[in-house]
Amino acid sequence: MKDTNINGLQPGDEVNGEFAVRSKKLLPYRDGTGCFLGLTLANKTGQVEGRVWEQADEVNKCCRAGDVVRVSGRVAEYKGTIQLNLTAVGKCPDDEVVPERFIPSTGVPAKKVWEDWLNIASSIGNPHLKQLLTLMANDHNLLQCLAASPAAKRNHHAKLGGLWEHSLGMVKAAEGTAAAYSQVNRDLLITGALLHDIGKIEEFRARADIEYTDAGRLLGHIILGVELVNRYIAKVPGFPKTLRLKLLHMIVSHHGQYEWQSPKRPKFLEAAILHQLDMMDAQVDMFTEAAAGRDDTEDNWAGWVRGLDRYVFCG
Amino acid sequence: MKDTNINGLQPGDEVNGEFAVRSKKLLPYRDGTGCFLGLTLANKTGQVEGRVWEQADEVNKCCRAGDVVRVSGRVAEYKGTIQLNLTAVGKCPDDEVVPERFIPSTGVPAKKVWEDWLNIASSIGNPHLKQLLTLMANDHNLLQCLAASPAAKRNHHAKLGGLWEHSLGMVKAAEGTAAAYSQVNRDLLITGALLHDIGKIEEFRARADIEYTDAGRLLGHIILGVELVNRYIAKVPGFPKTLRLKLLHMIVSHHGQYEWQSPKRPKFLEAAILHQLDMMDAQVDMFTEAAAGRDDTEDNWAGWVRGLDRYVFCG
Amino acid sequence: MKDTNINGLQPGDEVNGEFAVRSKKLLPYRDGTGCFLGLTLANKTGQVEGRVWEQADEVNKCCRAGDVVRVSGRVAEYKGTIQLNLTAVGKCPDDEVVPERFIPSTGVPAKKVWEDWLNIASSIGNPHLKQLLTLMANDHNLLQCLAASPAAKRNHHAKLGGLWEHSLGMVKAAEGTAAAYSQVNRDLLITGALLHDIGKIEEFRARADIEYTDAGRLLGHIILGVELVNRYIAKVPGFPKTLRLKLLHMIVSHHGQYEWQSPKRPKFLEAAILHQLDMMDAQVDMFTEAAAGRDDTEDNWAGWVRGLDRYVFCG
Amino acid sequence: MKDTNINGLQPGDEVNGEFAVRSKKLLPYRDGTGCFLGLTLANKTGQVEGRVWEQADEVNKCCRAGDVVRVSGRVAEYKGTIQLNLTAVGKCPDDEVVPERFIPSTGVPAKKVWEDWLNIASSIGNPHLKQLLTLMANDHNLLQCLAASPAAKRNHHAKLGGLWEHSLGMVKAAEGTAAAYSQVNRDLLITGALLHDIGKIEEFRARADIEYTDAGRLLGHIILGVELVNRYIAKVPGFPKTLRLKLLHMIVSHHGQYEWQSPKRPKFLEAAILHQLDMMDAQVDMFTEAAAGRDDTEDNWAGWVRGLDRYVFCG
Amino acid sequence: MKDTNINGLQPGDEVNGEFAVRSKKLLPYRDGTGCFLGLTLANKTGQVEGRVWEQADEVNKCCRAGDVVRVSGRVAEYKGTIQLNLTAVGKCPDDEVVPERFIPSTGVPAKKVWEDWLNIASSIGNPHLKQLLTLMANDHNLLQCLAASPAAKRNHHAKLGGLWEHSLGMVKAAEGTAAAYSQVNRDLLITGALLHDIGKIEEFRARADIEYTDAGRLLGHIILGVELVNRYIAKVPGFPKTLRLKLLHMIVSHHGQYEWQSPKRPKFLEAAILHQLDMMDAQVDMFTEAAAGRDDTEDNWAGWVRGLDRYVFCG
Amino acid sequence: MKDTNINGLQPGDEVNGEFAVRSKKLLPYRDGTGCFLGLTLANKTGQVEGRVWEQADEVNKCCRAGDVVRVSGRVAEYKGTIQLNLTAVGKCPDDEVVPERFIPSTGVPAKKVWEDWLNIASSIGNPHLKQLLTLMANDHNLLQCLAASPAAKRNHHAKLGGLWEHSLGMVKAAEGTAAAYSQVNRDLLITGALLHDIGKIEEFRARADIEYTDAGRLLGHIILGVELVNRYIAKVPGFPKTLRLKLLHMIVSHHGQYEWQSPKRPKFLEAAILHQLDMMDAQVDMFTEAAAGRDDTEDNWAGWVRGLDRYVFCG
Repeated sequence: MKDTNINGLQPGDEVNGEFAVRSKKLLPYRDGTGCFLGLTLANKTGQVEGRVWEQADEVNKCCRAGDVVRVSGRVAEYKGTIQLNLTAVGKCPDDEVVPERFIPSTGVPAKKVWEDWLNIASSIGNPHLKQLLTLMANDHNLLQCLAASPAAKRNHHAKLGGLWEHSLGMVKAAEGTAAAYSQVNRDLLITGALLHDIGKIEEFRARADIEYTDAGRLLGHIILGVELVNRYIAKVPGFPKTLRLKLLHMIVSHHGQYEWQSPKRPKFLEAAILHQLDMMDAQVDMFTEAAAGRDDTEDNWAGWVRGLDRYVFCG
Repeated sequence: MKDTNINGLQPGDEVNGEFAVRSKKLLPYRDGTGCFLGLTLANKTGQVEGRVWEQADEVNKCCRAGDVVRVSGRVAEYKGTIQLNLTAVGKCPDDEVVPERFIPSTGVPAKKVWEDWLNIASSIGNPHLKQLLTLMANDHNLLQCLAASPAAKRNHHAKLGGLWEHSLGMVKAAEGTAAAYSQVNRDLLITGALLHDIGKIEEFRARADIEYTDAGRLLGHIILGVELVNRYIAKVPGFPKTLRLKLLHMIVSHHGQYEWQSPKRPKFLEAAILHQLDMMDAQVDMFTEAAAGRDDTEDNWAGWVRGLDRYVFCG
Repeated sequence: MKDTNINGLQPGDEVNGEFAVRSKKLLPYRDGTGCFLGLTLANKTGQVEGRVWEQADEVNKCCRAGDVVRVSGRVAEYKGTIQLNLTAVGKCPDDEVVPERFIPSTGVPAKKVWEDWLNIASSIGNPHLKQLLTLMANDHNLLQCLAASPAAKRNHHAKLGGLWEHSLGMVKAAEGTAAAYSQVNRDLLITGALLHDIGKIEEFRARADIEYTDAGRLLGHIILGVELVNRYIAKVPGFPKTLRLKLLHMIVSHHGQYEWQSPKRPKFLEAAILHQLDMMDAQVDMFTEAAAGRDDTEDNWAGWVRGLDRYVFCG
Repeated sequence: MKDTNINGLQPGDEVNGEFAVRSKKLLPYRDGTGCFLGLTLANKTGQVEGRVWEQADEVNKCCRAGDVVRVSGRVAEYKGTIQLNLTAVGKCPDDEVVPERFIPSTGVPAKKVWEDWLNIASSIGNPHLKQLLTLMANDHNLLQCLAASPAAKRNHHAKLGGLWEHSLGMVKAAEGTAAAYSQVNRDLLITGALLHDIGKIEEFRARADIEYTDAGRLLGHIILGVELVNRYIAKVPGFPKTLRLKLLHMIVSHHGQYEWQSPKRPKFLEAAILHQLDMMDAQVDMFTEAAAGRDDTEDNWAGWVRGLDRYVFCG
Repeated sequence: MKDTNINGLQPGDEVNGEFAVRSKKLLPYRDGTGCFLGLTLANKTGQVEGRVWEQADEVNKCCRAGDVVRVSGRVAEYKGTIQLNLTAVGKCPDDEVVPERFIPSTGVPAKKVWEDWLNIASSIGNPHLKQLLTLMANDHNLLQCLAASPAAKRNHHAKLGGLWEHSLGMVKAAEGTAAAYSQVNRDLLITGALLHDIGKIEEFRARADIEYTDAGRLLGHIILGVELVNRYIAKVPGFPKTLRLKLLHMIVSHHGQYEWQSPKRPKFLEAAILHQLDMMDAQVDMFTEAAAGRDDTEDNWAGWVRGLDRYVFCG
Repeated sequence: MKDTNINGLQPGDEVNGEFAVRSKKLLPYRDGTGCFLGLTLANKTGQVEGRVWEQADEVNKCCRAGDVVRVSGRVAEYKGTIQLNLTAVGKCPDDEVVPERFIPSTGVPAKKVWEDWLNIASSIGNPHLKQLLTLMANDHNLLQCLAASPAAKRNHHAKLGGLWEHSLGMVKAAEGTAAAYSQVNRDLLITGALLHDIGKIEEFRARADIEYTDAGRLLGHIILGVELVNRYIAKVPGFPKTLRLKLLHMIVSHHGQYEWQSPKRPKFLEAAILHQLDMMDAQVDMFTEAAAGRDDTEDNWAGWVRGLDRYVFCG
């Protein structure tokens, strides 16, 4: 099924396709004799209002906001805007939803993620860290999840593949930093850069939209990351106790400050650097997106950017 | 071996006993011809200066601050204060150290802790929570650690047995709260009150003094508590997934605010109440200790109390 | 006069009733030849737009936002929503306004408040505190005000009778806490729980809506509560000076922190506990309301709750 | 009795005089056969150590830290410093203590305060405010307390008469401000400047030292000021209700921010200005004292000033 | 050309005039066959929607939001509101824009600013400060900029001439303060009051609206003020080095706190007073504007004022 | 003159040398017949007490704390510690003071700084930035100051040459970052890294100790850096206006947050990265120093580090 280009819809067009339900509401007819269902539908190309005029009540029960529906209908014009008059609406089963249809994506394939990961692993000299990363690389399900995961719901790297984009950016910057400061334990820093946000693959669920999971809201990616990495470390024979504490501490402290939800602040050099690189990579993404996304490219200013809480200069 | 009462020492007394080394320093003789060793020694009754005049260098190497030493010597008076001239000093092996000699204790025996724990477990209606608590009760090593553990290094419940005193206080207050608010899930609240600080048995090590462990400083009792409770939940067949998230969330969020090192803030009623009860129990202990510990019982004020950051009224 | 059920209005219905004026505005006719008056009208059942087409100017002068008006008119449909075309609008005198028609209410009668209060008073052993509470119970005007008062304009216990609901919740929780901690002065804590927010009866005025009084905004319920309790203490012969200071201090410090508008932080045990119970009772109410008020009961999450500044889990 | 100049004491001098006891401690003789009493004694000229060698225990019971004692003894030299060997020590009854002997003072006589107050009152046009101030002037006890009161225990205006110095400084600066801004209600601002800190006469007790009273610590000068001004307003017939709220609000809000212990922030122009003037007068005093009190007048810097939390430039 | 009174427009009126373009947007015809241009146009009297139905694309390219345009057209009524159907739209060259047409103004002429400035300069006794101010007065371009400059984009003194209004208010209040405190160096304080915000003439550009310049956003008026005053000081022979540091420090520290963008906090008396006066003058303006601008003059409250973050009392 | 090794002094040694006066005090003889002068003397090797027994008053006037003095005397032992009995003390003229004798130093010669600087300049492609850096390199006085300057008085890089160490570390880390992120303007980032702290050469004066200059305390290195770089930019013909704003903005915003004394926060990518690198380099230095400076290398912990406000792990 081809995705409908919402911005190209013309009155009279017939529509058959999958859409994410952003919100919905039963509304009374003007004459008070019954109800119709109003749906806000979306895919990656945009958003459009839909109307179900018949059996609205029944259709209302078949889906919830956040679901994906398969619809048939026809485009109409109403008060200067386009809307879809729908004749059929059915829920798309969760396991048939293709998130790329509804959420922006970096488009990096899982295979590329796997190759990059192996390259990084092969550059590690410490045998236990190397074994840990190799072992994780062999868990295809893990890397597939990683390749598809967003790094956030908003602000920075909020797209499918965003987590890997962020992790890889961190590894590169870590490489540059380790080169600048000889006292840095490169293997530990690179491994920390690769794994610091790994808990996010359980924090978010990306289907019709990027949503938090229950575990994501109740425990968060720091706790989930500790649990996940612990599971793999347990499979590496003779993984040193202190190395485990240091690696977990880097996950636990990578937000750098208590008020940013790190229960511990960085207590050794590589953990401190990891936090700074995390801040930096997030800012690089936000400044880059701000400059790329501004409306008026002749203006020196990209306007006020929410995630940065400031005006951004592009002059 | 009987503990030496440091406050009762008189010039000329002979001393044989175990003392914690709080600090030590090699110092030069006045005539510059060599060195003596100055030690600050302590047990539960107080603190006294010790001097090793012969072979100071050798003795200096046999122990570190934080160790316990066995000494022989004699009491002398120097510039108006008492000191010990030591003729023999030897390190007490770590596994022979009896912490009760050096750290205040509530004196509650492990058996009493076990009975109280079982009583609480038997009051729980939820079968999975009941089974979890029963299973933990059967781990004698766990309850022995719990019975001996402090709840802090300073400020409140900073004594052997303090963790249990705090946990039990919380259970009692939770009982009162559950009675006042019918919408509260009593079983969940009581279990949370019992387990919220359980990670502290791995956060602190109490020997010559209460010290943080490496894991305590690098991960902290919230992460350690999650790991510990996870291990026991894994042994309860069919423990519901959401119940696990809720119980872990109560541990994760019990400090209530990010800046107090909780990576999540309480997100449901029982977690919110648990945080308030934790604040309350810590304050009850600090106010009670402040009133009990003031110098001048005729004064209406207990002076400025560090943990509370205020003057305390006892009028 | 029966209250109009706003949600049940149908085009053509005749309406006669009292409504609160939430806002109003004179608007020009489309042809520019004059003005009509648009009113947003409300009662406890909801909100509806009203239109005065004739003599709009005159009607506009007869009432202000926040007043209650008595109107006659007929329901019409306009662009898919209901509105009232009004033929008569007159201000309802302030002393004839029945707040229960416009503001949610717990529905607890003043007599029940009085009985509960007397029960609490009779449980107090301290003769001066008992006498104080008894004396206040005999002031029927005071208890009537208390029974009708909200505890807030928003967030928690924001309804008629909310102040009593909050005070009684606090007394119950205080009872549970006093039972858990034997060092607590129960009489003082219970009295503090009962009186800590009493100044709110002068902070708010509930008529067409819950509003702050001038004294409420300029002095606040802490200052007003001190003034009020001072007036009753003055009538208790021999009320001990220190007991007065302690009781007033509990009012003054019950918000617990300077930034929450307490000019003093709790300086003794019962004042500290009172603050924690106040926090707890407010949170119990907010979590309970959040769970009760969510739209989609199949969703594990009640959405983002403003007063708690977080998402609330109901799973 | 003439005050002893502590800095002028020479070994062998005989001393008879009154001293404040800053601290005291029973200490053992070197030979362990008994105890002597060490006292830190002070008057306005400085501080000196005292020793009671005989019947130390008895003397120890006759006085507490914060008391004033009358002593006889002789000056001796010990380890390069001066100390007093005391042969007689007796508590000076509280009502015979002359605070000027122990606390710095502005030296402004109560009569001058009274004249200045009357001058200010006579400049007020508003009849109710004028009557209020006149009535207060006629309460000789009130003005006597005011004339003797400090404005603080530390930081600024911490001397006898400091409260009046601060109040009068504020009145002068208020005069200048009212002249600069014609929209200011001069009478209200001047009255607020005069009365904003009046509660301090009940917050501090100045005898051997400046101490907080119980009411000062438990309620604070804002609450005490409201109570005090309320008592006088009650005696002014027909004092307008809103004027009372405005005057009390100026007291309540004069610290300007919640975290500085004002339960309300300034809500009208004169209250806002009063807060700024209060900040300014405190800073003027601290900068002036810092410049006056520096050790090395050739240095451009007065060193780090605690109350200002910064280095002060005098170049 | 006379300014169009936007509030007086009637359907059918012809309009020829200059308007600021607040925003603009190309919108599709309902039938999807092309586009029209929607413009939000404004002048000092208000705001109105404009429509360009023909050659919208071309017109769209000739101007940007923030420009001033010269338009011809006719008033029409659409859905109850007024709009302009435009037949001609052309950009007004930047150097022909008259800001007074689009931004509120104090209306004080540059000549009056110059006279006031000279009066202030002549009152200064310090020869170097006097020479500095005289020299600046002779730079007609500088004073012309000053006379036309706003003091802010929002909140306080946000109008043409607002910077001078604020500076002069500060000088007057400084005069009053110097009179109240004899230790103040009046000449330094007055000069600081006059020059503290002078950098704002380069921070803002007022044409169709008050906008930040690039230098304003990237450096800010404190840095710009230091650069500007440095340029003039360089022209005063023998200007003392320490006096230069003190004057620049007053500019640098006048926001008083780091978080208010002062890189230094006031370090001597006159700098500290200057900060307080700056706070005060801003508040005087905000309270005065709040009282003047409220809708309902019978209400005691001016509603919630954003710049003050509070409700303002006018009773 | 060879530096005296203070730690190697033995009773009886004769001493002739230069020492920094850390503090000094006139003290009375025990018998009250006169005064002696006590001096705390220091050089890079340590600190020792000095005594002037004759003509103490005269010697006292010849020097101030912070000066360097040339002394002659002999070592004596007093109460177990070493002191110097001085027979001659004379102030060393300011311009003859050799700071390396009193302050730790990186030991990097100015010539090496100059070569490194030129290498960096030659790597810059942007002609204006290259010309700016080349021009600065030709100012030998500037680079000599830079080579000798500390980066701080405490915490990190607080030694002679520390500023260059910090600047060079930043340049290296900037190189690594520019390599990781292709969108970064490398020339701008490298130039910013090199110049961001250049104002520190006027903020500190290093002679007997690292001290703030008047300009350093009153204006700070951000303002001083802007002034300094402005002076050199003025000499580069055709330096683009926007490039100047961007470079100055990087200096102005490099502390990243208002509360860290940056009057602007970073508003474009390179400024944001510069701030992160500055944080990182300071932390690298502090963690490295903490690990290097710990007392007990067998301990996993370096103790609590003030500048980092935390315990540092070295395991």
